[in-house]
Amino acid sequence: MKEYVFGIDLGGTKIDACLMTEDGEIWESITVPTLADEGAEAVIERIKGCIFELIKYANQDEIISVGIAVPGVIDAERRVVKHLPNLPSWKDVPLPGIIQNVLQIPVAMENDANAAALGEYLYGSGIGIDNFIYITISTGIGGGIILNGKLFSGEWGNAGEIGHITINHKGPKCSCGSYGCWEAYASGTALARFAREGILNGRETIIKDKAQDEGIKAEHIFDAAKKGDKFALELIEKQGYYLGVGLANVVNAFNPRLIVIGGGLTNEWEMFYDNMINTMEIRAFKTNTEGLKIVKTLLGSKVGMVGAAAVGWSLIKKK
Amino acid sequence: MKEYVFGIDLGGTKIDACLMTEDGEIWESITVPTLADEGAEAVIERIKGCIFELIKYANQDEIISVGIAVPGVIDAERRVVKHLPNLPSWKDVPLPGIIQNVLQIPVAMENDANAAALGEYLYGSGIGIDNFIYITISTGIGGGIILNGKLFSGEWGNAGEIGHITINHKGPKCSCGSYGCWEAYASGTALARFAREGILNGRETIIKDKAQDEGIKAEHIFDAAKKGDKFALELIEKQGYYLGVGLANVVNAFNPRLIVIGGGLTNEWEMFYDNMINTMEIRAFKTNTEGLKIVKTLLGSKVGMVGAAAVGWSLIKKK
Repeated sequence: MKEYVFGIDLGGTKIDACLMTEDGEIWESITVPTLADEGAEAVIERIKGCIFELIKYANQDEIISVGIAVPGVIDAERRVVKHLPNLPSWKDVPLPGIIQNVLQIPVAMENDANAAALGEYLYGSGIGIDNFIYITISTGIGGGIILNGKLFSGEWGNAGEIGHITINHKGPKCSCGSYGCWEAYASGTALARFAREGILNGRETIIKDKAQDEGIKAEHIFDAAKKGDKFALELIEKQGYYLGVGLANVVNAFNPRLIVIGGGLTNEWEMFYDNMINTMEIRAFKTNTEGLKIVKTLLGSKVGMVGAAAVGWSLIKKK
Repeated sequence: MKEYVFGIDLGGTKIDACLMTEDGEIWESITVPTLADEGAEAVIERIKGCIFELIKYANQDEIISVGIAVPGVIDAERRVVKHLPNLPSWKDVPLPGIIQNVLQIPVAMENDANAAALGEYLYGSGIGIDNFIYITISTGIGGGIILNGKLFSGEWGNAGEIGHITINHKGPKCSCGSYGCWEAYASGTALARFAREGILNGRETIIKDKAQDEGIKAEHIFDAAKKGDKFALELIEKQGYYLGVGLANVVNAFNPRLIVIGGGLTNEWEMFYDNMINTMEIRAFKTNTEGLKIVKTLLGSKVGMVGAAAVGWSLIKKK
């Protein structure tokens, strides 16, 4: 008998869902908009809709578990979604229980970066590496920790929140409520904020032309830099520096063999890579960087969905 | 047959060594000065001397392993001491192999804070708690990580260097070569440095009287604060704040159930505790702090020796 799990990656703008086999084959997948404004109940209905759509592609008894990835804070002990920064109506939602009631099969839930780490461990850049850190750099910065061949998600499911390690205790307020978090300096959102601040202070740049009527986003800054825009190049140099500062923290705290980096900003990886690595090497313990490898995600944009499904598989196979 | 292990805690000023039973009974112990200036070879001879002294208190076949704790960076793969900040002549010293050649029994080595974490797990405040972080706050700040009931020392033996997580990327140069590490803000050494800086800037204080002809140390600042010295009280308030900033980082990165704090500064714990905890609670994820416990070491000044012996026991018993 063929076996599948559901993988459901709940994002701020879209829901990716799939049926995946144990060897990582995406048997069928579907993407729908989250429409977070409509509230948690409506979003849960859309998640169920994805499941009912996908279930047609397999016999129901071939589907053995569900893995869910959510973009925020969970309480693993109580099996609830505590708080999702981009889905503000989600407060203490017992999502795994709700899905379990529908399907009558085991359901597991992880924070999205933790799920992605497990995805990379079982199916991506981390195969066979028992100690590594997955880092996603996009609008925010998230992390997932594989230790001794297992996802380490901490006591209440929220280990690996490395985006919220303070790199400047007097720094700007972060979305999490703290100050000067790594995310507030080195995420795509921070890059765009630094650009806006510079423009307000009168810096000459073509970034605004690139952005046109949209708000400034990280991609506009990379585009401008490719045209030789001096301010954009400076911003990206600073971005590499800030990424390196935070990487050094990760390297000193976890002493991993491998760091896998995913998220939107890896598309422009070569523009900040050298500065990021140099900064990290200056700041981290030499013994911890000498044998360390840093690579890009192999799963790319599929990492969320594959990660969620990996959470489902690990529940069953105790991988 | 009774069984013992050697525990050897190599420190910057003294060597503590003991024979310990599996249930944590210190059968016999000895302390000698390190005299680090005489160089690595002389110190190794003194370590051997401790062993030969202690060996008299048991039958040799009752002693089954050796655990060594060292105050600095190791390379676990190559089984060498890489670098000890307070024992500068130690570079790439294969200490476990040297001791193994003498005694012909298994020898394991860990960084001192990692060993202390294992000591607290097997014999101290962490008994029965499978996810916790040990933090030592004294001249420096070190950490040790117990995950899923095991010491997690990372790929090359140096995980848990949380004293060298940057809390201000533009901060003062740290002994490790980086800038603005937690240790450079919240250790006893940092506290004394802030005092000296304030005095140079003309702050009125009785700290200098307390220190008399010695250099200013953390204890002089605590003494002055107890007399109501305003500057000393300010310094300790700041110390609590900096400790809280770093604790929040630890809590967000590891999501532990328990944090055990040891090291010299815990003697004055009640003077900075409230401010430390408040700062941590403001800055860390609420889900990660609600159920978290923070306690003082139970092993106190014995934690180094007991930790080293615990490393020896864990080698044999695969605890």
